[in-house]
Amino acid sequence: MRNRVCQRVCSILSSIFAVLVVLGVDGKSACGDEGMFPVSEIGRLNLQARGLELDPKEIFNAEKPCLIDAICRVNGCTGSFISSHGLIITNHHCAYGAIQKLSTRENDYLANGFLASSRAEELSAPGYTVRITESFEDVSEKVLSVVEPGMSFLERTKAIQKQQRTLEQAAEEQNPGRRAEVAEMFVGERYVLFLYVNIKDVRLVFAPPSSIGNFGGEVDNWEWPRHTGDFSFLRAYVAPDGSPADYSPDNVPFQPKRFLPVNPRGTEENDFVMLLGYPGRTARHNTASFLKFEQDIRLPYLVETYQREIARLEQAGAEDRAIALKLASRIKSMANVEKRSRGQLRGLQQLRFVERRAAEETELQAFINADPQRREKFGDLFAEINAVYAEMTDHAELEFGLRQLGTGSPILGLANFIVDAAHERQKPSLERERGFGDNVFAQTRERFELQQRDFHPPSDRSALEATLIQLSKVEASKLPVALANAVKSSESIQQFLDHLYQSNEILAASILNKTLEMTPGELTNVDEPFIQFAIALYPTLLELRERDKDREGRLSRYYGDLFNVKREFAAADSSRVLVPDANATLRLTVGRVEGYSPADAIYKAPFTTVAGLLAKNTGLDPFDAPPQIAQLHAARDFGNYLKANLNDVPVAMLYSTDSTGGNSGSPVINARGELVGVNFDRTFDATINDFAWDHAYSRSIGVDIRYVLWITGKVYGATALIEELGFERP
Amino acid sequence: MRNRVCQRVCSILSSIFAVLVVLGVDGKSACGDEGMFPVSEIGRLNLQARGLELDPKEIFNAEKPCLIDAICRVNGCTGSFISSHGLIITNHHCAYGAIQKLSTRENDYLANGFLASSRAEELSAPGYTVRITESFEDVSEKVLSVVEPGMSFLERTKAIQKQQRTLEQAAEEQNPGRRAEVAEMFVGERYVLFLYVNIKDVRLVFAPPSSIGNFGGEVDNWEWPRHTGDFSFLRAYVAPDGSPADYSPDNVPFQPKRFLPVNPRGTEENDFVMLLGYPGRTARHNTASFLKFEQDIRLPYLVETYQREIARLEQAGAEDRAIALKLASRIKSMANVEKRSRGQLRGLQQLRFVERRAAEETELQAFINADPQRREKFGDLFAEINAVYAEMTDHAELEFGLRQLGTGSPILGLANFIVDAAHERQKPSLERERGFGDNVFAQTRERFELQQRDFHPPSDRSALEATLIQLSKVEASKLPVALANAVKSSESIQQFLDHLYQSNEILAASILNKTLEMTPGELTNVDEPFIQFAIALYPTLLELRERDKDREGRLSRYYGDLFNVKREFAAADSSRVLVPDANATLRLTVGRVEGYSPADAIYKAPFTTVAGLLAKNTGLDPFDAPPQIAQLHAARDFGNYLKANLNDVPVAMLYSTDSTGGNSGSPVINARGELVGVNFDRTFDATINDFAWDHAYSRSIGVDIRYVLWITGKVYGATALIEELGFERP
Repeated sequence: MRNRVCQRVCSILSSIFAVLVVLGVDGKSACGDEGMFPVSEIGRLNLQARGLELDPKEIFNAEKPCLIDAICRVNGCTGSFISSHGLIITNHHCAYGAIQKLSTRENDYLANGFLASSRAEELSAPGYTVRITESFEDVSEKVLSVVEPGMSFLERTKAIQKQQRTLEQAAEEQNPGRRAEVAEMFVGERYVLFLYVNIKDVRLVFAPPSSIGNFGGEVDNWEWPRHTGDFSFLRAYVAPDGSPADYSPDNVPFQPKRFLPVNPRGTEENDFVMLLGYPGRTARHNTASFLKFEQDIRLPYLVETYQREIARLEQAGAEDRAIALKLASRIKSMANVEKRSRGQLRGLQQLRFVERRAAEETELQAFINADPQRREKFGDLFAEINAVYAEMTDHAELEFGLRQLGTGSPILGLANFIVDAAHERQKPSLERERGFGDNVFAQTRERFELQQRDFHPPSDRSALEATLIQLSKVEASKLPVALANAVKSSESIQQFLDHLYQSNEILAASILNKTLEMTPGELTNVDEPFIQFAIALYPTLLELRERDKDREGRLSRYYGDLFNVKREFAAADSSRVLVPDANATLRLTVGRVEGYSPADAIYKAPFTTVAGLLAKNTGLDPFDAPPQIAQLHAARDFGNYLKANLNDVPVAMLYSTDSTGGNSGSPVINARGELVGVNFDRTFDATINDFAWDHAYSRSIGVDIRYVLWITGKVYGATALIEELGFERP
Repeated sequence: MRNRVCQRVCSILSSIFAVLVVLGVDGKSACGDEGMFPVSEIGRLNLQARGLELDPKEIFNAEKPCLIDAICRVNGCTGSFISSHGLIITNHHCAYGAIQKLSTRENDYLANGFLASSRAEELSAPGYTVRITESFEDVSEKVLSVVEPGMSFLERTKAIQKQQRTLEQAAEEQNPGRRAEVAEMFVGERYVLFLYVNIKDVRLVFAPPSSIGNFGGEVDNWEWPRHTGDFSFLRAYVAPDGSPADYSPDNVPFQPKRFLPVNPRGTEENDFVMLLGYPGRTARHNTASFLKFEQDIRLPYLVETYQREIARLEQAGAEDRAIALKLASRIKSMANVEKRSRGQLRGLQQLRFVERRAAEETELQAFINADPQRREKFGDLFAEINAVYAEMTDHAELEFGLRQLGTGSPILGLANFIVDAAHERQKPSLERERGFGDNVFAQTRERFELQQRDFHPPSDRSALEATLIQLSKVEASKLPVALANAVKSSESIQQFLDHLYQSNEILAASILNKTLEMTPGELTNVDEPFIQFAIALYPTLLELRERDKDREGRLSRYYGDLFNVKREFAAADSSRVLVPDANATLRLTVGRVEGYSPADAIYKAPFTTVAGLLAKNTGLDPFDAPPQIAQLHAARDFGNYLKANLNDVPVAMLYSTDSTGGNSGSPVINARGELVGVNFDRTFDATINDFAWDHAYSRSIGVDIRYVLWITGKVYGATALIEELGFERP
């Protein structure tokens, strides 16, 4: 299927990215490692000159199975098939949500790890899906054909979104059992329809305890040196006929077209490596005004809010392991974002990005102004973009507060979802917001059902209280009346919260079943305070959504212009490189295993060791590795996994490939197409990657395959897994 | 004078240290850099094999002037003479107290720096003295001759202390104008009398602003990489006849017998370097029970108390620069100790020193027990030492609180001094506590007078309040009645503080003159609440002092035994090294310019650069270097001070010499006896040096001479100084 589609679209895709290839990716230039390239571009990246020993066609080939068939998306992460029986390796933190939901006080897999003693013992991972990219097609013309002159920006956004849904639905109808998604490849310019195999029966095979998989916890997160064994094994299952199906004991392991061979000898400093995966979002072409909004408004708000919420949730879990388990996944994900945001803030300030980007824009503006025609067409683009961020800055306090209501309080978040669904589901499927279409609604709903299991009213209430206090500082006339009344005084806030949390009905699974069948009118009769509050908030949140669409329309239009200007500008000077932003579609990124100097007189080397892990191992969480590690290390029982020049098993590795969120779990692949590590993080200096990549500071972090195999085979004796990878007992 | 004495004592000193030389310091062994050696040992250290290009006799020579004549003690720091006109280079932080006391809101030399435009403009540094070691003599026999069988430990300590004073007084009488001090070289074993030239007219010549001299402040203190220009220039003056004299405009620059030539080309990685200086105190032979007391009791108390006090003082100074200037020196010194203590705590815990030292003691105990005679003589020594620390642990809350009363509140500290002096000065001079003897009392008194200038009643009161609250937790029966009454309740504490701080008479200079002439009986009639409180505290503090002397006697006896056991033990195994502890007398320490790896996958290189400084320079205190630095750097106006392989001026350097507090300001001397830097700190990992030195983590930090000269000559245009060093305009 892919092959046919692919042949048709390759030439189109090539034209999109040709500019990149021509301008920047010429062998081993200093900037050569930046860029997350669509796999269609692999043939043009000159990979063999960089060290690839394979024919690039082995990575991506329109004619026959190739390496990308071994790559999958695991929820928001990446995974690799590493056996013909659907065995997937990804990060521990990517499987964390499943491990958490499967854990109880009695069977605490977060604390103790989990190893299925046979395939029958593998546990269904709730809420997990695995997607494999099957084919893609350029649909820019079809998408943009619905844009008509004279449309407002809001209308433009809505029309484009509807057309995206339409194309997706048509593709899914033509390709039964597949999931379709139209992705915007260059803002406002290029759209590609991706078809995915969507596997719904995913099971947990092996996860080490958090004391290995999350060794170092938030202290070490985003840091190097690192000693985290951040890996786990899942398995994809399908119906006996090979088609994706919901969980059933009758399902059989999925047989991928290709799997990645594992190289147990790992890699060496300076070796070529590449990542394949689904990097989420980057914003490398955004303006100085965007960066300033991030630096002055959004990131500080986020850091402050998350720090407060994390402290609150940790306190709530401190005395009861059952509550701690409920809250663990949320805390981990907030802590991750909080620290990343702090790193980005530091990077923006220290590297003076706003200033530097502004200087680039001055140059671009001069370039625009130099040509009357360009000036006529593009003269105002920066002013237009800046106006959007100025507006966002003006509304930030109110808008952040409104969004935080349902984010801080998952209970209110569920009520908002119920009300939203009632309205959306009145519309034709194609006109609904993403997630509400008939084809995906069941999955969206399952996500909320799973969240419901982790509700914890006391911490929910205190988070909502903090947001209400914050919103009490906003001018009352800007708030919906119900909210304005609630935040009038500290007393009114308490009364309102008493009123909300008196009932626990919203916690019952039944209410979701009941209310999700209702119309907006019927919902008004539901005597449940959260639902009623959500109804009162709805018009304001809807207005906010429309405002967002208007902004999106404006940004889409002017960033599209900006991209065109940059393309012209770049054409005039071959030293300038344009790289595509990530958008959660399949990408390739290349680099080398190498250290770096984060500051004057400091050098960070690219491998850590078990000895280094033990030096950190105070025995206190998060530095409390299981005693077997120290025992095996003292006995020098390293199996085949010793790295000679370290005289130890390497734990983690550092390399200069471009990466971002979504690359979690990506295979680190050597020059021969073998798996040598599993990507799981970036350095603190590289958090700024999302805005600007630089070879000097951008390094990604992976767990070394030798540590994976040592832990799996030696420390946990998971012999069957080692054998499934094609090796003898370790 | 020294020469004659020295010839006589060299053979005696040699026998003391022979064991060290035989056992450890054999060329370039891994441990070869540990040890702070008395200069008499220089001939035995095999320095030429390590890279010294001079004849060791050029460093220390009993016959004629040599390098150590260029080394001086500057209050608690070290300095070097670097011109024939008494010009001294030391640290900015060593001159800090003088700069602070000379600063006013109008002439803020801390903020703006100070450069004397001519000799006549050099400012008298209040409270500063410069000492030069002139000679030394082993007086162990004379000191220990006063110990009689049957003496209690308290009596033993008192007898030894009295004998030390007696010998000092005799030496000063024989050598007019000299200061004598008997130092305990090995605890309870060996005593050496040092004679010093004691220069009392010291003047400030050049100090860069704190934004250079203290760049990085407490954030960077004890850290590497470092970018602090921690240097300043002083000058020693004497009477026209060459004898030490109090400040007089008629005084002339002191002419040292030797001065250190400055090498403006600095040094390179791996070069041999040595420090000469006055390292304060180390405790490398102390027991596991001592380390445990430090780890569990003293260091945590100190960190907590100092953090609280620093926060309080900083707040007090936040809104008034005049108050901030008053408190600056105290804050700086507390912050320094607080962070060092934190580093030591971390080191003790991470490196598990208590455990490791205990394991060594198990081995030593087995060695003792193996021989019936040894067992008879030394069998109980660990038990006896441990009993002292057990007792200190039991009394810690009370004793720390009592000591903190006068430390936290300098006003009460002064009152305690007045009462103490009244009692001490009733005794014959020789029997008084150190600092109260007729020969030194004027100097002690001056120190208190200078402190008085910086009194700040509001912060003094709040510190005292905190200590009283803490003492309210001690059982009332253990407290003197006046104190027990004061801390009965929160109300009584406030009333008591109101009572104390109602009067400000103790702040007046007159009260010091008046009360220091009084007998204890007369003092009871002084109607001043602090004096009256100090009188009420006196018996308890005296008891505490006697308890300390008893402990000192016990420790002196049993540590002496321990040293003898270790000597025997070491003689049986040549891999064991014994090194002398520092005791604030002149020492030599050697090493190399080299980086280190503080943790797995991290390497710290031995030079920092101006570019690195600018990368840290946010413009916000403590990272707000004067703009000239960025300007000159941008213009690449490096004078002769460029280090080619860095392509920049080196700012600070790292080397593996042993050092401790008191080595601040020590010259970093190259293989040819030239000054290439000024020592000012250790790394955070090396704070633990005081308890245990290790080549893996022990690194000292100095400011590179090229940065000193660039700042002095280029940035501040102090041409006369550069010329005085023998160079042309930079």
